[in-house]
Amino acid sequence: MRRRLLAEFVGTALLVTVVVGSGIMAQTLSPDDVGLQLLQNSTATVLGLAVLILILGPVSGAHFNPVVSLADWWQGRRTGTGLSVRDLGGYALAQVLGAIGGSVLANAMFDRPAITWSTHDRAAPYLWLGEVVATAGLVLVIFCLVRSGRTTAAPAAVAAYIGAAYWFTSSTSFANPAVTIGRAFTDSFAGIAPSSVPGFVVAQLIGCVIGLLLVHGLFGSRKPADQFSGGTAGADQRG
Amino acid sequence: MRRRLLAEFVGTALLVTVVVGSGIMAQTLSPDDVGLQLLQNSTATVLGLAVLILILGPVSGAHFNPVVSLADWWQGRRTGTGLSVRDLGGYALAQVLGAIGGSVLANAMFDRPAITWSTHDRAAPYLWLGEVVATAGLVLVIFCLVRSGRTTAAPAAVAAYIGAAYWFTSSTSFANPAVTIGRAFTDSFAGIAPSSVPGFVVAQLIGCVIGLLLVHGLFGSRKPADQFSGGTAGADQRG
Amino acid sequence: MRRRLLAEFVGTALLVTVVVGSGIMAQTLSPDDVGLQLLQNSTATVLGLAVLILILGPVSGAHFNPVVSLADWWQGRRTGTGLSVRDLGGYALAQVLGAIGGSVLANAMFDRPAITWSTHDRAAPYLWLGEVVATAGLVLVIFCLVRSGRTTAAPAAVAAYIGAAYWFTSSTSFANPAVTIGRAFTDSFAGIAPSSVPGFVVAQLIGCVIGLLLVHGLFGSRKPADQFSGGTAGADQRG
Amino acid sequence: MRRRLLAEFVGTALLVTVVVGSGIMAQTLSPDDVGLQLLQNSTATVLGLAVLILILGPVSGAHFNPVVSLADWWQGRRTGTGLSVRDLGGYALAQVLGAIGGSVLANAMFDRPAITWSTHDRAAPYLWLGEVVATAGLVLVIFCLVRSGRTTAAPAAVAAYIGAAYWFTSSTSFANPAVTIGRAFTDSFAGIAPSSVPGFVVAQLIGCVIGLLLVHGLFGSRKPADQFSGGTAGADQRG
Repeated sequence: MRRRLLAEFVGTALLVTVVVGSGIMAQTLSPDDVGLQLLQNSTATVLGLAVLILILGPVSGAHFNPVVSLADWWQGRRTGTGLSVRDLGGYALAQVLGAIGGSVLANAMFDRPAITWSTHDRAAPYLWLGEVVATAGLVLVIFCLVRSGRTTAAPAAVAAYIGAAYWFTSSTSFANPAVTIGRAFTDSFAGIAPSSVPGFVVAQLIGCVIGLLLVHGLFGSRKPADQFSGGTAGADQRG
Repeated sequence: MRRRLLAEFVGTALLVTVVVGSGIMAQTLSPDDVGLQLLQNSTATVLGLAVLILILGPVSGAHFNPVVSLADWWQGRRTGTGLSVRDLGGYALAQVLGAIGGSVLANAMFDRPAITWSTHDRAAPYLWLGEVVATAGLVLVIFCLVRSGRTTAAPAAVAAYIGAAYWFTSSTSFANPAVTIGRAFTDSFAGIAPSSVPGFVVAQLIGCVIGLLLVHGLFGSRKPADQFSGGTAGADQRG
Repeated sequence: MRRRLLAEFVGTALLVTVVVGSGIMAQTLSPDDVGLQLLQNSTATVLGLAVLILILGPVSGAHFNPVVSLADWWQGRRTGTGLSVRDLGGYALAQVLGAIGGSVLANAMFDRPAITWSTHDRAAPYLWLGEVVATAGLVLVIFCLVRSGRTTAAPAAVAAYIGAAYWFTSSTSFANPAVTIGRAFTDSFAGIAPSSVPGFVVAQLIGCVIGLLLVHGLFGSRKPADQFSGGTAGADQRG
Repeated sequence: MRRRLLAEFVGTALLVTVVVGSGIMAQTLSPDDVGLQLLQNSTATVLGLAVLILILGPVSGAHFNPVVSLADWWQGRRTGTGLSVRDLGGYALAQVLGAIGGSVLANAMFDRPAITWSTHDRAAPYLWLGEVVATAGLVLVIFCLVRSGRTTAAPAAVAAYIGAAYWFTSSTSFANPAVTIGRAFTDSFAGIAPSSVPGFVVAQLIGCVIGLLLVHGLFGSRKPADQFSGGTAGADQRG
């Protein structure tokens, strides 16, 4: 379990470093065009996220996201094949701490104070709708692959999905409570004001439920063999 | 069949949400450069389309396009391996309803009225030629893969093709009657005036015929084993 | 053989349509930034080229380039496994005619006269050096894959290489005599003045020789089993 | 061994040609937006690096980087499966000479003096931190793949990682002592002042150690079967 938690911590940290760091770089180098900044930011995120899922998947399943861990627990609760409740707590804690660490590292790399609270207000019903859609889509993507036995495509598919969702959702698709919390710790392009965090997290949880309902509608009830964190369990026995 | 129709509905809806939503985002963030907007819009579409075909392919074949369903029926009509005429009707209906729903969802996510008719006029012979070429190419791509038994490459190949066709065709490659109808329901970057829809659909049907002729010229007449919706049939039996 | 020549004609035509068409689109939509135009043009080419090689590879080997066909003949001349001299003539002719057709189609799609001679002068020693490097690299990429038995990676690898070479060579990497000729038939972003064509073609042939020497240095002399157009031969028997 | 050194020389040379050449092109074509230049430069690098690792991996392991060769030697020193100390010296020399050659070639292709010392000062603690993070991440990516037996994913994964790291690190991620030295030989976008080279190299070595510690924490101590340069050894026996 120690290795799995390390993987979740390192992976979520580097994910937030990618998101925040590339946001600062974009803002610095292309100050006049916010759309170009988002293109740079989203391109870096697609590439970085795909690599992180690829390299850490065999260790922890590469969730990097409490919503994904939650859905994994839910889908496997009857067959005993997903995360346990205790695993879920450990994963979520490692993810949140990693996300905060990633923000601090990005701030430091760009010669800024380690922690600066974001002043970027992101609270409005249409943005919450964006987060609902973004998270439902993310859960849909992951668990369609799980249910059809093609999780080896997850690194590319999840990264590509997030790359699209940066653009097609009004909220630029946080879709991840841990990353949302981490992004409150930087007053830069990718930041979110602490007061906007709860709204986003609630919307993400609603999106998670909708995503799971869609998966159920498309694939029916789960069978024991459809196991997302199977590789994870194997890694755990070594851990 | 219910699951297949749900997959076609959800997939086409999300495809149009990606196209319309990213168009609105691009227009908002990079107002001064239409070319940069198209780059943002086409990049998001490539990523989103690849993921949607990947995750929903095992359920319905992931057509999301009446022209593709039509060609699938045509290619399989003698061997009884493609869609039936009745399936074709169901698919087309689900696709059109999904496309409209996707436009409405994108409008709502960006805090706009749910339906605003597009005022973007797209009626001219050179644009129709663009749609003929775009659709012929799309059919060529899909059925070359079908005929050479490599449909697992379809998600990446179809998405890459559309990404190129956004740029090399004068019409930015709609190449899809359902999506064309759906894009009439939004007065934004990706919209098309309702009066321009029929011309585009006719051009797409002509392109479909040309594409099938090219496939026939390259691969000869079809054998029963070359089955596009084979996986679909399997999914149907569970549905 | 008829199908192989059709594949070379269609593939080269569509390749030039992609290059020329996306160049016109880029020039029209982003008139103020030539670098952004090249980014749009190169992105569309990467996506389009990968798809064309993927779908037509099983039919003709998807050369679309007399230099590649020439190298294929040379590498297979002793073992009788490559193109014959007569095949080579047919391929080159189909490629040149296709390239011209592709330019004409792109011009027509964008409402321009079918043929307009390019006035874009591209004659200078440093540009010729660019073409030598570009073509040597292309031959290196293709025949390293052939010699290590991994031609299934060719669609992505060749497209990615050309995408890089658009930027790292001073000539924006034509690297293809047929495409060079075709691009003389359009007075737009991707055009080349007819008087600059011979210099580019000579440089490309020199690059081909250097590329083959590098492959020889890295992999030694060829064995009969390393067969690039093996799939081609199979397709031919059906043709 | 001769072929392996040729592969390291050619690969590192072309990698630097890609980085420097695309930097000059970007600077020339988009003079007004440094962020757009970096997007063009990083996109070209991602595509070019992936191809170079793909085609030369079977010959030499495609390190192109003394830090990677060093880590390969370290990881394999007990099992005798990595590079020997003597191999390591040869690799590093071929890489440094190749990197310088690549800079000279890029300068020549763009009609500039063959060697112009960079005047781009890159010396500051936050940039060194960027290099530490960049190199630790690179080593993490490569050896996670090695340890989980998935080095066939290395071309895409390493290229994607570098593409992200261009943006999320403050130093634009050199992460390679040979390439750092090579980039001192060009006074253009991608250059680094000779006086800034030592600081970067020291930071890269620190990053290498951190990366190896992370790999150890995630996967435990190495077993003989986890062999990065296994294919290399095979190639060597032919060389």
